[in-house]
Amino acid sequence: MRVRILGSGAGGGFPQWNCGCSNCRRYRSGLFRGSARSQAQLAFSEDGEDWYLLNASPDLRYQIESTPELHPRAPGRNSPIRGVILSGADVDLCLGLLLLREWHRLEVYSTAGVRAAITNGNCFFRVFERMTGQLRWECVEPGSAHSLDSFSFRLLSMPGKYPAWAIDPSDLRPDQAVSGILIESRSHQTLAFLPGLPCISPDLLNVLASCVIVLVDGTFWSEDELIEIEPNARRASEIGHMPVSGPNGSMAALSSLTGTRRIYIHINNTNPILDESSSQHRAVREAGWEVAYDGMELAL
Amino acid sequence: MRVRILGSGAGGGFPQWNCGCSNCRRYRSGLFRGSARSQAQLAFSEDGEDWYLLNASPDLRYQIESTPELHPRAPGRNSPIRGVILSGADVDLCLGLLLLREWHRLEVYSTAGVRAAITNGNCFFRVFERMTGQLRWECVEPGSAHSLDSFSFRLLSMPGKYPAWAIDPSDLRPDQAVSGILIESRSHQTLAFLPGLPCISPDLLNVLASCVIVLVDGTFWSEDELIEIEPNARRASEIGHMPVSGPNGSMAALSSLTGTRRIYIHINNTNPILDESSSQHRAVREAGWEVAYDGMELAL
Repeated sequence: MRVRILGSGAGGGFPQWNCGCSNCRRYRSGLFRGSARSQAQLAFSEDGEDWYLLNASPDLRYQIESTPELHPRAPGRNSPIRGVILSGADVDLCLGLLLLREWHRLEVYSTAGVRAAITNGNCFFRVFERMTGQLRWECVEPGSAHSLDSFSFRLLSMPGKYPAWAIDPSDLRPDQAVSGILIESRSHQTLAFLPGLPCISPDLLNVLASCVIVLVDGTFWSEDELIEIEPNARRASEIGHMPVSGPNGSMAALSSLTGTRRIYIHINNTNPILDESSSQHRAVREAGWEVAYDGMELAL
Repeated sequence: MRVRILGSGAGGGFPQWNCGCSNCRRYRSGLFRGSARSQAQLAFSEDGEDWYLLNASPDLRYQIESTPELHPRAPGRNSPIRGVILSGADVDLCLGLLLLREWHRLEVYSTAGVRAAITNGNCFFRVFERMTGQLRWECVEPGSAHSLDSFSFRLLSMPGKYPAWAIDPSDLRPDQAVSGILIESRSHQTLAFLPGLPCISPDLLNVLASCVIVLVDGTFWSEDELIEIEPNARRASEIGHMPVSGPNGSMAALSSLTGTRRIYIHINNTNPILDESSSQHRAVREAGWEVAYDGMELAL
């Protein structure tokens, strides 16, 4: 299975349009050692012909255009993109669905709660009604495996909330709000995609230990990172992201996974690991981690 | 006044993600003489400090990032973008508002009908409720002039429809669905922005004759252009776009405006004028027209 990281940044990408943090300022002035990041997005294919997406980022138009494997292969309207699996309902995870509205049939997989949060009271999604059956949206239960043509996937329920903008989120099942996604290839190797990871339970640690590749929430280096640019901002753990560093960070919590390829993704523009000359970047590399970048290729 | 064309394409841009038309195929194979186009978007500023946008395209994150004038100028969260004037409610015209949701105050100007079409029953727009007064959305009446700090603008009512996905569009005033936008600079020079132009009345022709620059709907070269790639597609005039060519086209209808700088914008990926080696491109140039491109600078 080929896996392509189309985007490795957190919401807003790097640099972020209205951010003057140290990373963004230095990047724009050409003084930054590290690359720009579009918003987190994965694509994968078992045969190189049919491709599936993990989430649908607001940058999807550019991400598709910069990936020849995802281009049309014939005259007329066509695309090798078959479907999308969603890990949550945040705007950054699903807005890209609206960019795929040009008369192309698409399979979408999510929990029932995520589907309801995104589409209840959302007139934008009525745009898909002009073509019968354009979106075939299948709701799946966290925990159970779902086989598609050439691979299977499983959603892992994570502690987390529906977006505050959702209509009546209290009517939706809390265990369906945020998921990790496990993709199992035809050769029975598993990749875990956890762009929003609030904590690591012993069960989750066991699951991750059985994976060949884990793509883990690298949003923030530290708990207070956002407060440095926005005094009223919340801490990392308050918005569902375990920081990378510290005794309660993901680097320490996953230090036992020495047989697994560990990669940070969904990296916020403020995170010092984006700066390849930083001590923080060096620290994650020395701990055996990789830092995802746009265009990165993985194989399962 | 400085005017920057951030995007010059129609909805979906050029190349379009799932399009295998002759233009898109040749562009991707490196055989096309002409540049890619992001979705139509303008920015303008009277003093080079405060900038306003005409519409808010889905490509806005990339368009801002590729325009140093629109970057933050200080540490912390900040942006020189003050406001947005909307010409209609189509997803391609307003989706970019959701990309500007990161804790930045914004003035939005549109007709009451366009505001209702976009925001009624649209849970995504509740994302702005987390910050009090983040969007100050002022509804303006077509025809009347509105003065802001350093310029004034006027919406011109065009024949046209609200998007089919809007909630109860029949409850909204039809004359508020689609507008042209006139921007008058401090030096009393006027630019017209007409990305959706279904027809040209004698009154409109008079208005345009008084403008220094007109940016005109260049979506389609011909009436049947879309049918060539999608057999079930509608004709240009059925979706509110006067074609460029032919006896009923905009090139003929505006041939008397010899004292006005005439520029085609909102150019669909299928339009042969994108190909600089085409006879159609030559024809518009010989008729005195320019073809907008991303990054084009204008002055008023």
